[in-house]
Amino acid sequence: MKKVYMDYVATNPLHPEVLDAMMPYLQEDFANPLSIYEPALKAKEAIENARKQVASLINAKPNEIIFTASGAESNNFAVKGAALANQNKGKHIITTKIEHHSITNSARFLERYDFNVTYLPVDKSGIVNPSAVERAIREETILISINHANPEIGTIEPIEEIAKIAKEKNVLFHTDAVASAGNIPVDVRELNVDLLSLSAHQFYGPKGASALFLKEGTRIMPLIYGGIQEGGRRAGTENVPAIVGMGKAAEMAKEKLSARIAHNMSLRDKLISAVSKIDKVYLTGHPEKRLPGHASFVVEYIEGEAMLLLLAGNGIYAASGSACTSKALKASPVLTSIGIPSHMAHGSIVFTIGQETTEDDIDYLIQKFEPIIKRLREMSPISQG
Amino acid sequence: MKKVYMDYVATNPLHPEVLDAMMPYLQEDFANPLSIYEPALKAKEAIENARKQVASLINAKPNEIIFTASGAESNNFAVKGAALANQNKGKHIITTKIEHHSITNSARFLERYDFNVTYLPVDKSGIVNPSAVERAIREETILISINHANPEIGTIEPIEEIAKIAKEKNVLFHTDAVASAGNIPVDVRELNVDLLSLSAHQFYGPKGASALFLKEGTRIMPLIYGGIQEGGRRAGTENVPAIVGMGKAAEMAKEKLSARIAHNMSLRDKLISAVSKIDKVYLTGHPEKRLPGHASFVVEYIEGEAMLLLLAGNGIYAASGSACTSKALKASPVLTSIGIPSHMAHGSIVFTIGQETTEDDIDYLIQKFEPIIKRLREMSPISQG
Repeated sequence: MKKVYMDYVATNPLHPEVLDAMMPYLQEDFANPLSIYEPALKAKEAIENARKQVASLINAKPNEIIFTASGAESNNFAVKGAALANQNKGKHIITTKIEHHSITNSARFLERYDFNVTYLPVDKSGIVNPSAVERAIREETILISINHANPEIGTIEPIEEIAKIAKEKNVLFHTDAVASAGNIPVDVRELNVDLLSLSAHQFYGPKGASALFLKEGTRIMPLIYGGIQEGGRRAGTENVPAIVGMGKAAEMAKEKLSARIAHNMSLRDKLISAVSKIDKVYLTGHPEKRLPGHASFVVEYIEGEAMLLLLAGNGIYAASGSACTSKALKASPVLTSIGIPSHMAHGSIVFTIGQETTEDDIDYLIQKFEPIIKRLREMSPISQG
Repeated sequence: MKKVYMDYVATNPLHPEVLDAMMPYLQEDFANPLSIYEPALKAKEAIENARKQVASLINAKPNEIIFTASGAESNNFAVKGAALANQNKGKHIITTKIEHHSITNSARFLERYDFNVTYLPVDKSGIVNPSAVERAIREETILISINHANPEIGTIEPIEEIAKIAKEKNVLFHTDAVASAGNIPVDVRELNVDLLSLSAHQFYGPKGASALFLKEGTRIMPLIYGGIQEGGRRAGTENVPAIVGMGKAAEMAKEKLSARIAHNMSLRDKLISAVSKIDKVYLTGHPEKRLPGHASFVVEYIEGEAMLLLLAGNGIYAASGSACTSKALKASPVLTSIGIPSHMAHGSIVFTIGQETTEDDIDYLIQKFEPIIKRLREMSPISQG
């Protein structure tokens, strides 16, 4: 049976060239970069080279990159670390109702320690209103955290505009760019952010390597204390192979960005156009301001999970909501935040496209999807009622 | 030139069989384990298999294993997580003066949040006195954290005895077993601990995979919030290849433990016996209760760093103090805690032995080491003064 992987937002395959770059560090070059003999220095150099590559992808300076082990770690580190390090200035934080759980739950943690958090609403395409951010800023506001692109609905937020407001009000600004970095242009100077999270496995790099951009001079409290790795800001023996892989993946993403975007966007548009024609199937997220490989829908009268299973039965691998929450059977807060009624939010389906996706894959998906919907609706007591 | 790696305590080479087990997950089996299609289920199964293997190494139940990305993360998670989750019972913690920085600095973090921490002294071989622990326990004591084996001096603590006291007093007990697990028998039931940290790259597994044993029913607060991975206790897309590697390495460590111990111990004893004969060179740590591959010394009148450089010039790779602190030029708190005067503590040198170490390597080291000491002493104004 044909296999069509359409879940790039959950994770990407590791690019073979990236794996090649990692292999020496999984074999002979295994030394601990903190040691002072030659093989250790080589490992250290490899990390610093990766730091330059990652910095270059987002137009940061190398000393502004802190390696972590996951996007979730970067987000926890950013939100908790910046809040705790700056709490003498105030204890108010602004975020949105459509953030990843690693942001929302970090904010909830801070609420236990007397922080106040404003969770801003979004409009029906998932866009945060910059004026609403401005109105929410108070004297005690120390941090704003808003995702660059939302992994469930693909919407790209007006970060530059919001960050400008934050800057004027002298409030730190963090953006979760896990879904966007490596997939669309991300320039920390243009975006004008103080902190930004990114993750290698979202751009054909390895799992286990992510990073936090921390603008020079920005105070943060470590999440993981211990040794002097990462300038004392993030302890733990460096995962050298994964970091090297992240560097290589960043370098490739930078080089190939426009080609990748063009490839993904053309397939995405074909898919959205075909699927939107199916009866009672609606695109979620913004029609234009969205990730180039992201096509998300709600299908009325159907459970997302049932669609996933029948799609998988045809070799098509997709998602319903975000991978991190797909097993929690609640209506996605992202979808309810964009005004989708909870009964429809359960019919969420997300197709994400990547470099290995072909025109043929899209045709196959289009051909299979409508009959699956029909079959499920015939079985559904709701659709007949 | 001959190359002799004698820094197994800093990190181990990845065992080729472990890498073989990881390779499919670095290639075709890349799916996110949280998804619900077949390749994702395969990844999920691989993680659960690794969980069983790691559990089996330390005689835990699989649901008592939480995967993390580093020993430092496990230690931060254990100390901060157990303290914050149990602070309603009291805010006093007991640890020692010879813990890894990931423990000490986590304790210092808690001190900022009104916790009280007792840092117990150790005797001149690095042993914590169980009666001192008993005396330090108060009504408000909620957590004791003491390392199983110290990476700088190799000393193995009487954990079973101390944990028994903790149990009687109804205080949670954590042990940092990063340096010991996979290298000596570690049985969480015999040790009777509630939490235990271990790290794959200390037993020929990959960097980027570690674990926290958390006894069933023990409350903990997450360090990294986000998705529902690891039962909601540790978020972040699982580093599947590294976790699979940790499982395989744990399985091999269990199988080969006695052979590995015998190999390491015989080479260690030969090394200690020869080096101890050099004028004004003293073994640090306990002469018998020490890690099987661990030989640590202080050399009077010499800087550890100078020895490391000349040893490296002869292809011998060793450590001075712990890798995590080797670049901070302070006298090691571990060595000053065992009563070594600060001027001698600077002459610390640590040789650690592993499966690839040969008799020949030890002979080579013995042959090279004394002339290096002589040469450095000739250059040293102190030794002549």
